[in-house]
Amino acid sequence: MHPYEATASQILAQLRDGSLTVEQYAQSLLSRIEQRDDDVKAWAYLNPDLIIQRAKELDQIPKAERGPLHGIAIGVKDVIFTKDMPTQHGSPIYEGASPEIDSASVSILRHAGALIFGKTTTTEFAASQKGCATRNARDPGRTPGGSSSGSGAAVGDYQVPIALGTQTGGSVIRPASFNGTYGFKPTWGAISREGQKIHSLTFDTLGFFARSAADFKLLADVFEIHDDTPPEPEFGVAGASFAIAKTAVWPKAGPGTVAAMEKTAELLRESGARVEEVELPAEFAQASAWHKVLLDTDGKASFLPEYRRAADRLSPTIVGHVENIAGHTRAQILEAFDGLAALRPKLDAIAARYAAIITPSVPDEAPVGLHSTGDFCFNAMWTALHVPVINVPGLLGPNKMPVGISLVVPRYHDQHLIAVAEGVGKVLEHSAAWVATN
Amino acid sequence: MHPYEATASQILAQLRDGSLTVEQYAQSLLSRIEQRDDDVKAWAYLNPDLIIQRAKELDQIPKAERGPLHGIAIGVKDVIFTKDMPTQHGSPIYEGASPEIDSASVSILRHAGALIFGKTTTTEFAASQKGCATRNARDPGRTPGGSSSGSGAAVGDYQVPIALGTQTGGSVIRPASFNGTYGFKPTWGAISREGQKIHSLTFDTLGFFARSAADFKLLADVFEIHDDTPPEPEFGVAGASFAIAKTAVWPKAGPGTVAAMEKTAELLRESGARVEEVELPAEFAQASAWHKVLLDTDGKASFLPEYRRAADRLSPTIVGHVENIAGHTRAQILEAFDGLAALRPKLDAIAARYAAIITPSVPDEAPVGLHSTGDFCFNAMWTALHVPVINVPGLLGPNKMPVGISLVVPRYHDQHLIAVAEGVGKVLEHSAAWVATN
Repeated sequence: MHPYEATASQILAQLRDGSLTVEQYAQSLLSRIEQRDDDVKAWAYLNPDLIIQRAKELDQIPKAERGPLHGIAIGVKDVIFTKDMPTQHGSPIYEGASPEIDSASVSILRHAGALIFGKTTTTEFAASQKGCATRNARDPGRTPGGSSSGSGAAVGDYQVPIALGTQTGGSVIRPASFNGTYGFKPTWGAISREGQKIHSLTFDTLGFFARSAADFKLLADVFEIHDDTPPEPEFGVAGASFAIAKTAVWPKAGPGTVAAMEKTAELLRESGARVEEVELPAEFAQASAWHKVLLDTDGKASFLPEYRRAADRLSPTIVGHVENIAGHTRAQILEAFDGLAALRPKLDAIAARYAAIITPSVPDEAPVGLHSTGDFCFNAMWTALHVPVINVPGLLGPNKMPVGISLVVPRYHDQHLIAVAEGVGKVLEHSAAWVATN
Repeated sequence: MHPYEATASQILAQLRDGSLTVEQYAQSLLSRIEQRDDDVKAWAYLNPDLIIQRAKELDQIPKAERGPLHGIAIGVKDVIFTKDMPTQHGSPIYEGASPEIDSASVSILRHAGALIFGKTTTTEFAASQKGCATRNARDPGRTPGGSSSGSGAAVGDYQVPIALGTQTGGSVIRPASFNGTYGFKPTWGAISREGQKIHSLTFDTLGFFARSAADFKLLADVFEIHDDTPPEPEFGVAGASFAIAKTAVWPKAGPGTVAAMEKTAELLRESGARVEEVELPAEFAQASAWHKVLLDTDGKASFLPEYRRAADRLSPTIVGHVENIAGHTRAQILEAFDGLAALRPKLDAIAARYAAIITPSVPDEAPVGLHSTGDFCFNAMWTALHVPVINVPGLLGPNKMPVGISLVVPRYHDQHLIAVAEGVGKVLEHSAAWVATN
């Protein structure tokens, strides 16, 4: 196995026992990128000299002083500040912009010894479908999803083991599903979002891409994301209870997602789990519409500075937010804000009855073409309700493209979720990349 | 009248008719500061050469291209990024730090033609009582309040007409009251908080200091803070209905605040208003405790980067947040978060029955000494409930120090609030700085 193929947890062991240096590891990743970048185009900024310099610095650190993520390469979505690289937000307005500051997340990762590798592409401000040429890790003719396009593609393509993304609609879970990676959107508020471009304070959440659930455990520990009750050391699927929540958006599910949901239930049952369908109370049907109202109106305040300075260089989506073309009133904003707030504890109570809720990550396989990054319709409600979500890969749709499923648990049960995702992931991996047939 | 004595609205008229240049205006403010800075110490960064250079640039702009705030000098609290000045957060960790980026608010103000004047002092990260030597504009032996200490003192002392502050507990309203200025905390979310140090996403709100309510109208228009129904062009106190809400914290009110509340009711009644006492339902008594829970736990995530890098250079308050010395559980965090969310529409409904709720801004006059910036007990609930608040000055306590009162209205009625504050302000000003007697 080449070093670039390893997960973060696997490579950590080699870096710790001295069988691999950070510099060697970085060279392996760079050679993979060199080979693949023309097809995938996952990077908004990548400076091999800087990477090797930082890798050498990490190799110089005495063993006793190394952090828990020593040498782990991490891609950073280009709406997140990095003091030694530009941050351009996928927008021509910020071309070449390079504020010399680290986001809270990058600061914590750097301090833990991570090798901040480069900036991954994003659609414009992580808020429109415009602005990046990145292609799917599995098929250059398809979208990698968005807005964390480069992070999903880079991790899916073995260019880095971990990447940071952000989710306001479905920008972590969707590209994770499309590129066949794990994706983790923690509980809203569990990690500081300082130093990231804001679209919606109500929804924006820092998230992660990785190729194993165990890697999320590493990250959750570094970010001190703890549950009130630590989860069992190893979660067993046998005897556990799962809910299938198709939600009000189910009519949008295509054949790949329909088959993936059925196959997941079947595999879990075969492994000894109880799986039952749960219908959320009718009031939850409002959640997606309320999410949309706040996406628009939070975007109005967030993008006013860019609108004032350079409206002609913004996409119509962003201009539409600022000009409130949807015509939302303040009363409607408050109805959405308070309505979602009232649903949050209700969802927690329902989710607490199960090991996890299983729900679609996407309508289907990644769409063909690069003109659209896909639809976040299956993610909006969970983002709006602040619950942690993990996309679990392992199944393939009719065109042998990945179709993930989402696991959802109550807020602040992130460590439990990671344990469940590890258990469910094993079951899906055992299916040996089961392929849905048309 | 010297130019430095004018409000923003007054000086705009002179800048527009050409009777004053921006450079002349800047010189007037600088001369005031030169005279007073040893006593007040409101500035964390002030560069007269840069100010004059910017002022000259503004004077060069053709009249037709000038923005709505052309030439208006604005002080910026030192937790808010300015691309041409350091941002040091009142913390030794950020001494000399100078990320070359503007916050959303500064970007909008600059685009509107404002003269970004300098950085005003803040307590450490706007989150502890530590870290600034600023003194009250009316008495150098007393605190100016915090955490927006420099903004309150600079506006109160006629060093700038407007300054930006932030409020997470009571950091705009308290220094406004202590320094005898107007203070405006808009509805949470109405203005982007991008590019400000985060303490609590749930509460942090950008706010303003000025010496007239009319100046807030200028700012609300620039930031596109609109109500669903535009307020009457001139609000008349006569015939209007006000509620007096003493709240569960009333036992903390000292003689200055007790007298100010009584005098305000008396003056409004004399002007033809109806004033009645309203008792909030018992569940509102929880709001301050819930606010404290989220202040601590949001602070845990927000200050984790600084804690990891330099815990020994943080005050015990900040360390306590990160180490969760209060021992809040995740269940308690959610109870607080959801509990406050449920109260918000209830408060809106109560407040909507009146022109405004009148409530204390502070326990009393600014305390003697600089060891404490005072108590935000009377502000916490309103911050937590996201409602807009204006501190109206005009009355004095037993030691002839200012004691303001707060006006509160439902969320997103900010323009209405400004109109009411203008009306109430006139009534209090007519009292000719009425002094409470011991």
